Amino acid sequence: MFIERLTIIGVGLIGGSLACALRKQGVCGEVVGCGRNIENLQRGVDLGVIDRYDTDPARAVTGADVVVIAVPLGGFAGVFQAIRDAVNPSVILTDVGSAKGSVVNDAKQHLSPALYSRFVPAHPIAGTEKSGVAAAFAELFVKRKIILTPHEQTDADACDYISTLWQYTGAEVVTLSVEHHDRVLAATSHLPHVLAYNLVNTLAQMDEQADVFQFAAGGFRDFTRIASSDPTMWHDICLANREAILAILARYQQHLNELSHAIKTGQSETILTAFKQAKNTRDAFFG
Amino acid sequence: MFIERLTIIGVGLIGGSLACALRKQGVCGEVVGCGRNIENLQRGVDLGVIDRYDTDPARAVTGADVVVIAVPLGGFAGVFQAIRDAVNPSVILTDVGSAKGSVVNDAKQHLSPALYSRFVPAHPIAGTEKSGVAAAFAELFVKRKIILTPHEQTDADACDYISTLWQYTGAEVVTLSVEHHDRVLAATSHLPHVLAYNLVNTLAQMDEQADVFQFAAGGFRDFTRIASSDPTMWHDICLANREAILAILARYQQHLNELSHAIKTGQSETILTAFKQAKNTRDAFFG
Repeated sequence: MFIERLTIIGVGLIGGSLACALRKQGVCGEVVGCGRNIENLQRGVDLGVIDRYDTDPARAVTGADVVVIAVPLGGFAGVFQAIRDAVNPSVILTDVGSAKGSVVNDAKQHLSPALYSRFVPAHPIAGTEKSGVAAAFAELFVKRKIILTPHEQTDADACDYISTLWQYTGAEVVTLSVEHHDRVLAATSHLPHVLAYNLVNTLAQMDEQADVFQFAAGGFRDFTRIASSDPTMWHDICLANREAILAILARYQQHLNELSHAIKTGQSETILTAFKQAKNTRDAFFG
Repeated sequence: MFIERLTIIGVGLIGGSLACALRKQGVCGEVVGCGRNIENLQRGVDLGVIDRYDTDPARAVTGADVVVIAVPLGGFAGVFQAIRDAVNPSVILTDVGSAKGSVVNDAKQHLSPALYSRFVPAHPIAGTEKSGVAAAFAELFVKRKIILTPHEQTDADACDYISTLWQYTGAEVVTLSVEHHDRVLAATSHLPHVLAYNLVNTLAQMDEQADVFQFAAGGFRDFTRIASSDPTMWHDICLANREAILAILARYQQHLNELSHAIKTGQSETILTAFKQAKNTRDAFFG
Protein backbone atom coordinates (compact mmCIF):
# COMPACT_ATOMS: atom_id res chain seq x y z
CA MET A 1 0.00 0.00 0.00
CA PHE A 2 1.36 3.41 -1.00
CA ILE A 3 0.06 4.92 2.27
CA GLU A 4 -0.83 2.70 5.24
CA ARG A 5 -2.24 5.47 7.37
CA LEU A 6 -3.08 9.00 6.21
CA THR A 7 -4.01 11.77 8.62
CA ILE A 8 -5.92 14.79 7.29
CA ILE A 9 -5.91 17.79 9.62
CA GLY A 10 -8.82 19.94 8.47
CA VAL A 11 -11.40 17.70 6.77
CA GLY A 12 -13.01 20.17 4.37
CA LEU A 13 -13.48 20.34 0.62
CA ILE A 14 -9.79 19.96 -0.26
CA GLY A 15 -8.65 17.57 2.48
CA GLY A 16 -11.79 15.47 2.11
CA SER A 17 -11.52 15.30 -1.68
CA LEU A 18 -7.87 14.23 -1.44
CA ALA A 19 -8.84 11.37 0.90
CA CYS A 20 -11.68 10.35 -1.47
CA ALA A 21 -9.38 10.39 -4.50
CA LEU A 22 -6.63 8.30 -2.86
CA ARG A 23 -9.11 5.73 -1.52
CA LYS A 24 -10.79 5.46 -4.91
CA GLN A 25 -7.38 4.62 -6.42
CA GLY A 26 -6.88 1.97 -3.73
CA VAL A 27 -3.53 3.44 -2.69
CA CYS A 28 -4.48 4.41 0.83
CA GLY A 29 -5.28 2.27 3.89
CA GLU A 30 -6.70 3.97 6.96
CA VAL A 31 -7.70 7.65 6.85
CA VAL A 32 -7.78 9.54 10.14
CA GLY A 33 -9.48 12.93 10.27
CA CYS A 34 -8.70 15.73 12.69
CA GLY A 35 -10.54 19.00 13.29
CA ARG A 36 -12.51 21.05 15.79
CA ASN A 37 -16.02 20.57 14.42
CA ILE A 38 -17.18 17.13 15.58
CA GLU A 39 -20.36 17.33 13.52
CA ASN A 40 -18.29 17.83 10.36
CA LEU A 41 -15.91 15.00 11.31
CA GLN A 42 -18.80 12.62 12.02
CA ARG A 43 -20.28 13.52 8.64
CA GLY A 44 -16.89 12.63 7.13
CA VAL A 45 -17.14 9.18 8.73
CA ASP A 46 -20.78 8.76 7.63
CA LEU A 47 -19.87 9.70 4.06
CA GLY A 48 -16.94 7.26 4.07
CA VAL A 49 -14.40 10.05 3.51
CA ILE A 50 -12.48 9.17 6.70
CA ASP A 51 -12.43 6.00 8.81
CA ARG A 52 -12.22 7.66 12.22
CA TYR A 53 -11.38 10.97 13.78
CA ASP A 54 -9.66 12.53 16.75
CA THR A 55 -9.99 16.17 17.75
CA ASP A 56 -6.51 16.10 19.27
CA PRO A 57 -3.86 16.62 16.56
CA ALA A 58 -1.13 14.76 18.48
CA ARG A 59 -3.27 11.64 18.82
CA ALA A 60 -4.58 11.96 15.25
CA VAL A 61 -1.10 11.89 13.69
CA THR A 62 0.22 8.96 15.77
CA GLY A 63 1.43 6.21 13.45
CA ALA A 64 0.63 8.12 10.26
CA ASP A 65 2.88 7.74 7.18
CA VAL A 66 1.60 10.98 5.71
CA VAL A 67 0.03 14.01 7.37
CA VAL A 68 -1.83 16.54 5.20
CA ILE A 69 -2.48 19.92 6.80
CA ALA A 70 -5.58 21.46 5.26
CA VAL A 71 -6.57 24.14 7.78
CA PRO A 72 -6.86 27.91 7.16
CA LEU A 73 -3.43 29.55 7.01
CA GLY A 74 -3.79 31.15 10.45
CA GLY A 75 -3.91 27.68 12.01
CA PHE A 76 -0.58 26.28 10.75
CA ALA A 77 1.69 27.44 13.60
CA GLY A 78 -0.61 25.82 16.16
CA VAL A 79 -0.82 22.58 14.19
CA PHE A 80 2.97 22.33 13.80
CA GLN A 81 3.43 22.86 17.53
CA ALA A 82 0.77 20.31 18.39
CA ILE A 83 2.09 17.48 16.19
CA ARG A 84 5.88 17.88 16.12
CA ASP A 85 6.56 15.55 19.05
CA ALA A 86 3.87 13.02 18.14
CA VAL A 87 4.67 12.10 14.54
CA ASN A 88 6.70 9.10 13.34
CA PRO A 89 10.31 10.07 12.56
CA SER A 90 9.67 8.77 9.02
CA VAL A 91 6.47 10.80 8.50
CA ILE A 92 6.07 13.00 5.45
CA LEU A 93 4.26 16.27 6.05
CA THR A 94 2.51 18.25 3.37
CA ASP A 95 -0.21 20.89 3.12
CA VAL A 96 -2.69 22.48 0.71
CA GLY A 97 -2.41 26.14 1.74
CA SER A 98 -3.17 28.87 -0.83
CA ALA A 99 -0.08 30.92 0.11
CA LYS A 100 3.29 29.27 0.68
CA GLY A 101 5.63 31.86 2.20
CA SER A 102 3.78 32.05 5.49
CA VAL A 103 3.45 28.26 5.69
CA VAL A 104 7.16 27.70 5.10
CA ASN A 105 8.02 30.35 7.71
CA ASP A 106 5.73 28.70 10.25
CA ALA A 107 7.25 25.28 9.50
CA LYS A 108 10.80 26.56 9.81
CA GLN A 109 10.01 28.23 13.12
CA HIS A 110 8.06 25.43 14.76
CA LEU A 111 9.46 22.14 13.39
CA SER A 112 12.78 20.44 14.15
CA PRO A 113 15.30 20.62 11.28
CA ALA A 114 14.74 16.90 10.58
CA LEU A 115 10.98 17.28 10.40
CA TYR A 116 11.24 20.55 8.45
CA SER A 117 13.20 18.68 5.76
CA ARG A 118 10.29 16.22 5.48
CA PHE A 119 7.73 18.99 4.95
CA VAL A 120 6.70 19.38 1.27
CA PRO A 121 4.63 22.56 0.74
CA ALA A 122 1.92 22.08 -1.89
CA HIS A 123 -1.05 23.93 -3.33
CA PRO A 124 -3.73 22.27 -5.46
CA ILE A 125 -5.24 24.79 -7.91
CA ALA A 126 -8.72 23.42 -7.45
CA GLY A 127 -11.77 24.11 -5.40
CA THR A 128 -15.23 25.56 -5.54
CA GLU A 129 -16.88 28.28 -3.48
CA LYS A 130 -18.35 25.51 -1.32
CA SER A 131 -16.68 24.32 1.86
CA GLY A 132 -16.99 21.47 4.35
CA VAL A 133 -16.55 17.72 3.97
CA ALA A 134 -20.03 17.30 2.45
CA ALA A 135 -18.75 19.14 -0.66
CA ALA A 136 -15.80 16.74 -1.12
CA PHE A 137 -15.57 14.48 -4.18
CA ALA A 138 -12.87 12.20 -5.60
CA GLU A 139 -12.66 13.91 -9.02
CA LEU A 140 -11.90 17.44 -7.76
CA PHE A 141 -8.24 17.27 -8.81
CA VAL A 142 -8.54 15.52 -12.18
CA LYS A 143 -6.54 17.49 -14.77
CA ARG A 144 -5.99 20.30 -12.24
CA LYS A 145 -2.55 21.67 -11.47
CA ILE A 146 -0.84 20.95 -8.16
CA ILE A 147 2.00 23.34 -7.39
CA LEU A 148 4.78 22.00 -5.18
CA THR A 149 7.01 24.68 -3.65
CA PRO A 150 9.88 22.80 -1.99
CA HIS A 151 11.92 25.01 0.35
CA GLU A 152 15.72 25.08 0.56
CA GLN A 153 15.82 22.09 2.95
CA THR A 154 13.08 19.89 1.50
CA ASP A 155 14.22 16.27 1.13
CA ALA A 156 14.17 15.18 -2.55
CA ASP A 157 12.63 11.77 -1.78
CA ALA A 158 9.85 13.35 0.28
CA CYS A 159 9.17 15.73 -2.61
CA ASP A 160 8.98 12.85 -5.12
CA TYR A 161 6.66 10.95 -2.80
CA ILE A 162 4.19 13.85 -2.53
CA SER A 163 4.40 14.35 -6.29
CA THR A 164 3.41 10.70 -6.80
CA LEU A 165 0.62 11.03 -4.21
CA TRP A 166 -0.96 13.90 -6.17
CA GLN A 167 -0.53 12.14 -9.50
CA TYR A 168 -2.77 9.36 -8.14
CA THR A 169 -5.59 11.94 -7.95
CA GLY A 170 -5.37 12.63 -11.69
CA ALA A 171 -3.66 15.99 -11.19
CA GLU A 172 -0.72 17.49 -13.05
CA VAL A 173 2.15 18.29 -10.68
CA VAL A 174 4.41 21.30 -11.30
CA THR A 175 7.11 22.96 -9.18
CA LEU A 176 7.56 26.68 -8.48
CA SER A 177 9.60 28.66 -5.99
CA VAL A 178 7.72 29.87 -2.91
CA GLU A 179 8.04 33.53 -3.93
CA HIS A 180 6.99 32.92 -7.54
CA HIS A 181 3.96 30.94 -6.41
CA ASP A 182 2.86 33.67 -4.03
CA ARG A 183 3.16 36.43 -6.64
CA VAL A 184 1.27 34.46 -9.30
CA LEU A 185 -1.51 33.33 -6.97
CA ALA A 186 -1.89 36.84 -5.53
CA ALA A 187 -2.73 37.96 -9.06
CA THR A 188 -4.99 35.16 -10.31
CA SER A 189 -6.72 34.09 -7.14
CA HIS A 190 -6.21 36.30 -4.08
CA LEU A 191 -6.81 39.67 -5.80
CA PRO A 192 -9.98 38.51 -7.62
CA HIS A 193 -11.43 37.32 -4.29
CA VAL A 194 -10.72 40.71 -2.69
CA LEU A 195 -12.32 42.47 -5.67
CA ALA A 196 -15.40 40.26 -5.64
CA TYR A 197 -15.99 40.65 -1.89
CA ASN A 198 -15.52 44.40 -2.30
CA LEU A 199 -17.99 44.64 -5.19
CA VAL A 200 -20.75 42.86 -3.30
CA ASN A 201 -20.23 45.11 -0.26
CA THR A 202 -20.20 48.27 -2.38
CA LEU A 203 -23.51 47.32 -3.98
CA ALA A 204 -25.04 46.23 -0.67
CA GLN A 205 -24.59 49.78 0.61
CA MET A 206 -26.44 51.44 -2.28
CA ASP A 207 -29.85 52.99 -1.65
CA GLU A 208 -31.27 50.73 -4.36
CA GLN A 209 -29.83 47.64 -2.67
CA ALA A 210 -32.81 45.32 -3.13
CA ASP A 211 -33.26 46.23 -6.80
CA VAL A 212 -29.57 46.00 -7.48
CA PHE A 213 -29.39 42.28 -6.83
CA GLN A 214 -32.86 41.56 -8.24
CA PHE A 215 -31.80 42.84 -11.66
CA ALA A 216 -28.40 41.18 -11.67
CA ALA A 217 -27.79 38.89 -14.62
CA GLY A 218 -25.63 35.82 -15.24
CA GLY A 219 -22.50 37.90 -15.69
CA PHE A 220 -22.83 39.32 -12.19
CA ARG A 221 -23.58 35.90 -10.75
CA ASP A 222 -20.39 34.46 -12.24
CA PHE A 223 -18.34 37.54 -11.40
CA THR A 224 -19.30 37.38 -7.73
CA ARG A 225 -19.35 33.59 -7.29
CA ILE A 226 -16.04 33.69 -5.42
CA ALA A 227 -17.55 36.18 -2.93
CA SER A 228 -19.42 33.17 -1.53
CA SER A 229 -16.11 31.58 -0.50
CA ASP A 230 -15.22 30.88 3.14
CA PRO A 231 -14.50 34.26 4.87
CA THR A 232 -12.05 32.88 7.46
CA MET A 233 -9.96 31.09 4.85
CA TRP A 234 -9.74 34.24 2.73
CA HIS A 235 -9.07 36.51 5.70
CA ASP A 236 -6.11 34.27 6.53
CA ILE A 237 -4.84 34.32 2.92
CA CYS A 238 -5.02 38.14 2.81
CA LEU A 239 -2.84 38.41 5.89
CA ALA A 240 -0.51 35.50 5.04
CA ASN A 241 0.24 36.75 1.51
CA ARG A 242 -0.16 40.42 2.36
CA GLU A 243 2.86 41.81 0.51
CA ALA A 244 2.21 40.13 -2.83
CA ILE A 245 -1.51 40.96 -2.65
CA LEU A 246 -0.89 44.63 -1.81
CA ALA A 247 1.64 44.91 -4.65
CA ILE A 248 -0.73 43.64 -7.35
CA LEU A 249 -3.69 45.45 -5.77
CA ALA A 250 -1.79 48.75 -6.03
CA ARG A 251 -1.15 48.13 -9.73
CA TYR A 252 -4.81 47.23 -10.21
CA GLN A 253 -5.90 50.47 -8.50
CA GLN A 254 -3.52 52.50 -10.65
CA HIS A 255 -4.91 50.95 -13.83
CA LEU A 256 -8.45 51.51 -12.58
CA ASN A 257 -7.74 55.18 -11.89
CA GLU A 258 -6.45 55.57 -15.43
CA LEU A 259 -9.49 53.82 -16.90
CA SER A 260 -11.83 55.88 -14.73
CA HIS A 261 -10.12 59.06 -15.94
CA ALA A 262 -10.47 57.94 -19.56
CA ILE A 263 -14.21 57.38 -19.06
CA LYS A 264 -14.62 60.73 -17.29
CA THR A 265 -12.85 62.65 -20.07
CA GLY A 266 -14.37 60.61 -22.90
CA GLN A 267 -11.07 59.23 -24.25
CA SER A 268 -12.71 56.91 -26.70
CA GLU A 269 -9.55 55.35 -28.13
CA THR A 270 -8.04 54.64 -24.70
CA ILE A 271 -11.18 52.86 -23.50
CA LEU A 272 -11.66 50.86 -26.69
CA THR A 273 -8.00 49.82 -26.83
CA ALA A 274 -8.07 48.70 -23.18
CA PHE A 275 -11.20 46.59 -23.69
CA LYS A 276 -9.86 45.05 -26.91
CA GLN A 277 -6.55 44.14 -25.27
CA ALA A 278 -8.34 42.52 -22.34
CA LYS A 279 -10.66 40.52 -24.60
CA ASN A 280 -7.76 39.38 -26.79
CA THR A 281 -5.70 38.35 -23.76
CA ARG A 282 -8.50 36.40 -22.16
CA ASP A 283 -9.69 34.76 -25.37
CA ALA A 284 -6.11 33.63 -26.08
CA PHE A 285 -5.98 31.75 -22.77
CA PHE A 286 -9.55 30.54 -22.32
CA GLY A 287 -10.83 30.81 -25.94
CA MET B 1 -50.49 37.62 -36.69
CA PHE B 2 -49.19 39.70 -33.76
CA ILE B 3 -46.43 41.16 -35.98
CA GLU B 4 -46.73 41.04 -39.79
CA ARG B 5 -43.30 42.45 -40.47
CA LEU B 6 -40.50 42.88 -37.92
CA THR B 7 -37.30 44.77 -38.71
CA ILE B 8 -34.22 44.12 -36.54
CA ILE B 9 -31.50 46.74 -36.89
CA GLY B 10 -28.37 45.07 -35.60
CA VAL B 11 -28.70 41.31 -36.04
CA GLY B 12 -26.49 40.06 -33.20
CA LEU B 13 -26.98 37.84 -30.17
CA ILE B 14 -29.89 39.85 -28.71
CA GLY B 15 -31.64 40.98 -31.89
CA GLY B 16 -31.21 37.56 -33.47
CA SER B 17 -32.45 35.69 -30.40
CA LEU B 18 -35.53 37.92 -30.21
CA ALA B 19 -36.37 37.10 -33.85
CA CYS B 20 -35.84 33.37 -33.16
CA ALA B 21 -38.06 33.46 -30.08
CA LEU B 22 -40.94 35.30 -31.78
CA ARG B 23 -40.84 33.02 -34.82
CA LYS B 24 -40.78 29.94 -32.63
CA GLN B 25 -43.97 31.19 -30.95
CA GLY B 26 -45.55 31.70 -34.37
CA VAL B 27 -46.41 35.32 -33.62
CA CYS B 28 -44.21 36.94 -36.25
CA GLY B 29 -44.45 36.98 -40.05
CA GLU B 30 -41.55 38.34 -42.06
CA VAL B 31 -38.31 39.28 -40.33
CA VAL B 32 -36.08 41.82 -42.07
CA GLY B 33 -32.50 42.26 -40.88
CA CYS B 34 -30.40 45.39 -41.19
CA GLY B 35 -26.72 45.94 -40.47
CA ARG B 36 -23.34 46.76 -41.95
CA ASN B 37 -21.73 43.32 -41.96
CA ILE B 38 -23.16 41.48 -45.01
CA GLU B 39 -21.46 38.23 -44.03
CA ASN B 40 -23.23 38.30 -40.65
CA LEU B 41 -26.57 39.18 -42.29
CA GLN B 42 -26.23 36.37 -44.83
CA ARG B 43 -25.46 33.97 -42.00
CA GLY B 44 -28.67 35.20 -40.36
CA VAL B 45 -30.58 34.24 -43.50
CA ASP B 46 -28.80 30.87 -43.76
CA LEU B 47 -29.61 30.11 -40.11
CA GLY B 48 -33.26 31.07 -40.63
CA VAL B 49 -33.05 33.88 -38.08
CA ILE B 50 -34.12 36.50 -40.65
CA ASP B 51 -35.93 36.14 -43.99
CA ARG B 52 -34.00 38.83 -45.86
CA TYR B 53 -31.80 41.82 -45.21
CA ASP B 54 -31.07 45.32 -46.41
CA THR B 55 -27.99 47.30 -45.41
CA ASP B 56 -29.94 50.55 -45.82
CA PRO B 57 -31.95 51.28 -42.64
CA ALA B 58 -34.58 53.37 -44.47
CA ARG B 59 -35.34 50.53 -46.89
CA ALA B 60 -35.15 47.89 -44.16
CA VAL B 61 -37.85 49.55 -42.03
CA THR B 62 -40.29 50.19 -44.89
CA GLY B 63 -43.63 48.58 -44.11
CA ALA B 64 -42.54 47.22 -40.74
CA ASP B 65 -45.03 47.07 -37.83
CA VAL B 66 -42.25 46.90 -35.29
CA VAL B 67 -38.64 48.05 -35.49
CA VAL B 68 -36.17 46.78 -32.89
CA ILE B 69 -32.90 48.73 -32.63
CA ALA B 70 -30.15 46.43 -31.36
CA VAL B 71 -26.97 48.29 -32.31
CA PRO B 72 -24.22 49.52 -29.92
CA LEU B 73 -25.31 52.68 -28.07
CA GLY B 74 -23.09 54.94 -30.16
CA GLY B 75 -25.12 54.04 -33.25
CA PHE B 76 -28.58 55.12 -32.08
CA ALA B 77 -28.52 58.76 -33.23
CA GLY B 78 -27.55 57.71 -36.76
CA VAL B 79 -30.25 55.01 -36.88
CA PHE B 80 -32.97 57.39 -35.69
CA GLN B 81 -31.98 59.92 -38.35
CA ALA B 82 -31.86 57.24 -41.05
CA ILE B 83 -35.30 55.74 -40.36
CA ARG B 84 -37.49 58.60 -39.13
CA ASP B 85 -38.88 59.52 -42.54
CA ALA B 86 -39.16 55.95 -43.80
CA VAL B 87 -41.23 54.19 -41.11
CA ASN B 88 -45.02 53.64 -41.17
CA PRO B 89 -46.86 56.26 -39.10
CA SER B 90 -48.27 53.36 -37.05
CA VAL B 91 -44.87 51.75 -36.40
CA ILE B 92 -43.78 50.91 -32.88
CA LEU B 93 -40.09 51.46 -32.16
CA THR B 94 -38.21 49.73 -29.40
CA ASP B 95 -34.60 48.90 -28.54
CA VAL B 96 -32.47 46.60 -26.39
CA GLY B 97 -29.77 49.05 -25.25
CA SER B 98 -27.94 48.47 -21.96
CA ALA B 99 -28.24 52.12 -20.87
CA LYS B 100 -31.48 54.05 -21.31
CA GLY B 101 -30.76 57.73 -20.62
CA SER B 102 -28.60 58.21 -23.70
CA VAL B 103 -31.04 56.30 -25.90
CA VAL B 104 -34.02 58.38 -24.74
CA ASN B 105 -32.02 61.59 -25.28
CA ASP B 106 -31.09 60.52 -28.80
CA ALA B 107 -34.72 59.60 -29.56
CA LYS B 108 -36.03 62.91 -28.25
CA GLN B 109 -33.50 64.84 -30.27
CA HIS B 110 -33.83 62.99 -33.57
CA LEU B 111 -37.45 61.74 -33.79
CA SER B 112 -40.64 63.72 -34.42
CA PRO B 113 -42.85 64.11 -31.32
CA ALA B 114 -45.34 61.62 -32.83
CA LEU B 115 -42.66 59.00 -33.44
CA TYR B 116 -40.97 59.70 -30.09
CA SER B 117 -44.26 58.82 -28.35
CA ARG B 118 -44.21 55.45 -30.15
CA PHE B 119 -40.69 54.63 -28.96
CA VAL B 120 -40.65 52.17 -26.03
CA PRO B 121 -37.15 51.90 -24.49
CA ALA B 122 -36.40 48.37 -23.28
CA HIS B 123 -33.48 46.36 -21.92
CA PRO B 124 -33.47 42.56 -21.72
CA ILE B 125 -31.29 41.39 -18.80
CA ALA B 126 -29.89 38.50 -20.76
CA GLY B 127 -26.90 37.70 -22.88
CA THR B 128 -23.66 35.84 -22.90
CA GLU B 129 -20.11 36.99 -23.59
CA LYS B 130 -20.61 35.77 -27.17
CA SER B 131 -21.74 38.07 -29.95
CA GLY B 132 -22.96 37.82 -33.55
CA VAL B 133 -26.03 36.17 -35.05
CA ALA B 134 -24.45 32.71 -34.91
CA ALA B 135 -24.73 32.87 -31.10
CA ALA B 136 -28.49 33.61 -31.21
CA PHE B 137 -31.03 31.12 -29.82
CA ALA B 138 -34.76 31.25 -29.13
CA GLU B 139 -34.55 30.42 -25.42
CA LEU B 140 -32.20 33.26 -24.43
CA PHE B 141 -34.94 35.27 -22.70
CA VAL B 142 -36.85 32.47 -20.95
CA LYS B 143 -37.39 33.48 -17.29
CA ARG B 144 -35.11 36.51 -17.77
CA LYS B 145 -36.17 40.01 -16.80
CA ILE B 146 -36.98 42.62 -19.45
CA ILE B 147 -36.91 46.17 -18.12
CA LEU B 148 -39.14 48.68 -19.91
CA THR B 149 -38.27 52.31 -19.18
CA PRO B 150 -41.08 54.34 -20.77
CA HIS B 151 -40.24 58.05 -21.00
CA GLU B 152 -42.61 60.91 -20.16
CA GLN B 153 -44.24 60.84 -23.63
CA THR B 154 -44.38 57.08 -24.29
CA ASP B 155 -47.81 56.01 -25.55
CA ALA B 156 -49.48 53.57 -23.13
CA ASP B 157 -50.73 51.26 -25.90
CA ALA B 158 -47.28 51.08 -27.49
CA CYS B 159 -45.84 50.20 -24.09
CA ASP B 160 -48.42 47.43 -23.57
CA TYR B 161 -47.68 46.07 -27.05
CA ILE B 162 -43.93 45.81 -26.42
CA SER B 163 -44.63 44.24 -23.03
CA THR B 164 -46.74 41.57 -24.76
CA LEU B 165 -44.04 41.06 -27.39
CA TRP B 166 -41.45 40.26 -24.73
CA GLN B 167 -43.81 38.01 -22.81
CA TYR B 168 -44.00 35.81 -25.93
CA THR B 169 -40.28 35.11 -25.48
CA GLY B 170 -40.86 33.64 -22.02
CA ALA B 171 -39.43 36.70 -20.24
CA GLU B 172 -40.74 38.53 -17.20
CA VAL B 173 -41.45 42.20 -17.98
CA VAL B 174 -40.93 44.90 -15.36
CA THR B 175 -40.96 48.70 -15.55
CA LEU B 176 -38.42 51.14 -14.08
CA SER B 177 -37.68 54.81 -14.57
CA VAL B 178 -34.83 55.63 -16.94
CA GLU B 179 -32.66 57.03 -14.13
CA HIS B 180 -33.33 54.13 -11.77
CA HIS B 181 -32.49 51.62 -14.50
CA ASP B 182 -29.22 53.35 -15.32
CA ARG B 183 -28.07 53.50 -11.67
CA VAL B 184 -28.93 49.85 -11.02
CA LEU B 185 -27.34 48.54 -14.22
CA ALA B 186 -24.24 50.65 -13.69
CA ALA B 187 -23.76 48.74 -10.44
CA THR B 188 -24.62 45.18 -11.43
CA SER B 189 -23.45 45.08 -15.02
CA HIS B 190 -21.43 48.05 -16.24
CA LEU B 191 -19.08 48.30 -13.25
CA PRO B 192 -18.30 44.54 -13.19
CA HIS B 193 -17.36 44.68 -16.88
CA VAL B 194 -14.99 47.60 -16.26
CA LEU B 195 -13.44 45.73 -13.31
CA ALA B 196 -13.02 42.50 -15.27
CA TYR B 197 -11.41 44.20 -18.28
CA ASN B 198 -9.14 46.07 -15.87
CA LEU B 199 -8.08 42.92 -14.03
CA VAL B 200 -7.09 41.09 -17.19
CA ASN B 201 -5.05 44.08 -18.38
CA THR B 202 -3.33 44.48 -15.01
CA LEU B 203 -2.28 40.83 -15.02
CA ALA B 204 -1.22 40.94 -18.67
CA GLN B 205 1.35 43.57 -17.77
CA MET B 206 3.00 41.54 -15.00
CA ASP B 207 6.49 40.13 -15.54
CA GLU B 208 5.11 36.65 -14.88
CA GLN B 209 2.38 37.12 -17.51
CA ALA B 210 2.55 33.65 -19.07
CA ASP B 211 2.56 31.86 -15.71
CA VAL B 212 -0.16 34.05 -14.36
CA PHE B 213 -2.79 32.79 -16.77
CA GLN B 214 -1.41 29.25 -16.86
CA PHE B 215 -2.07 28.81 -13.13
CA ALA B 216 -5.46 30.48 -13.14
CA ALA B 217 -8.26 28.32 -11.76
CA GLY B 218 -12.00 28.12 -12.29
CA GLY B 219 -12.68 31.12 -10.08
CA PHE B 220 -10.54 33.33 -12.28
CA ARG B 221 -12.13 31.95 -15.42
CA ASP B 222 -15.62 32.81 -14.16
CA PHE B 223 -14.54 36.15 -12.73
CA THR B 224 -13.10 37.29 -16.04
CA ARG B 225 -15.68 35.69 -18.37
CA ILE B 226 -17.27 39.09 -19.01
CA ALA B 227 -13.88 40.47 -20.13
CA SER B 228 -14.48 38.44 -23.31
CA SER B 229 -17.50 40.62 -24.14
CA ASP B 230 -17.66 42.82 -27.24
CA PRO B 231 -15.28 45.82 -26.73
CA THR B 232 -17.19 48.28 -28.94
CA MET B 233 -20.48 47.59 -27.20
CA TRP B 234 -18.91 48.11 -23.78
CA HIS B 235 -16.97 51.17 -24.85
CA ASP B 236 -20.30 52.69 -25.94
CA ILE B 237 -21.98 51.74 -22.65
CA CYS B 238 -19.17 53.35 -20.63
CA LEU B 239 -19.61 56.64 -22.44
CA ALA B 240 -23.42 56.50 -22.65
CA ASN B 241 -23.90 55.80 -18.94
CA ARG B 242 -20.79 57.66 -17.84
CA GLU B 243 -22.21 59.53 -14.84
CA ALA B 244 -23.84 56.55 -13.15
CA ILE B 245 -20.79 54.35 -13.81
CA LEU B 246 -18.35 56.93 -12.45
CA ALA B 247 -20.51 57.41 -9.34
CA ILE B 248 -20.56 53.71 -8.40
CA LEU B 249 -16.93 53.27 -9.50
CA ALA B 250 -15.88 56.03 -7.10
CA ARG B 251 -17.66 54.26 -4.24
CA TYR B 252 -16.05 50.99 -5.25
CA GLN B 253 -12.60 52.59 -5.24
CA GLN B 254 -13.22 54.14 -1.82
CA HIS B 255 -14.24 50.75 -0.39
CA LEU B 256 -11.23 49.13 -2.03
CA ASN B 257 -8.89 51.71 -0.50
CA GLU B 258 -10.34 50.99 2.94
CA LEU B 259 -9.99 47.23 2.46
CA SER B 260 -6.44 47.63 1.16
CA HIS B 261 -5.58 49.73 4.22
CA ALA B 262 -7.09 47.07 6.50
CA ILE B 263 -4.93 44.38 4.86
CA LYS B 264 -1.82 46.57 5.06
CA THR B 265 -2.30 47.30 8.76
CA GLY B 266 -3.49 43.79 9.64
CA GLN B 267 -6.96 44.82 10.84
CA SER B 268 -8.21 41.29 11.22
CA GLU B 269 -11.72 42.10 12.40
CA THR B 270 -12.35 44.62 9.60
CA ILE B 271 -11.28 42.15 6.91
CA LEU B 272 -13.21 39.23 8.37
CA THR B 273 -16.37 41.30 8.85
CA ALA B 274 -16.19 42.61 5.28
CA PHE B 275 -15.81 39.11 3.81
CA LYS B 276 -18.59 37.69 5.99
CA GLN B 277 -20.97 40.48 5.01
CA ALA B 278 -20.22 39.98 1.33
CA LYS B 279 -20.74 36.21 1.54
CA ASN B 280 -24.00 36.62 3.48
CA THR B 281 -25.30 39.21 0.99
CA ARG B 282 -24.46 37.09 -2.03
CA ASP B 283 -25.70 33.82 -0.55
CA ALA B 284 -29.01 35.50 0.35
CA PHE B 285 -29.59 36.45 -3.29
CA PHE B 286 -28.04 33.55 -5.19
CA GLY B 287 -27.78 30.89 -2.41
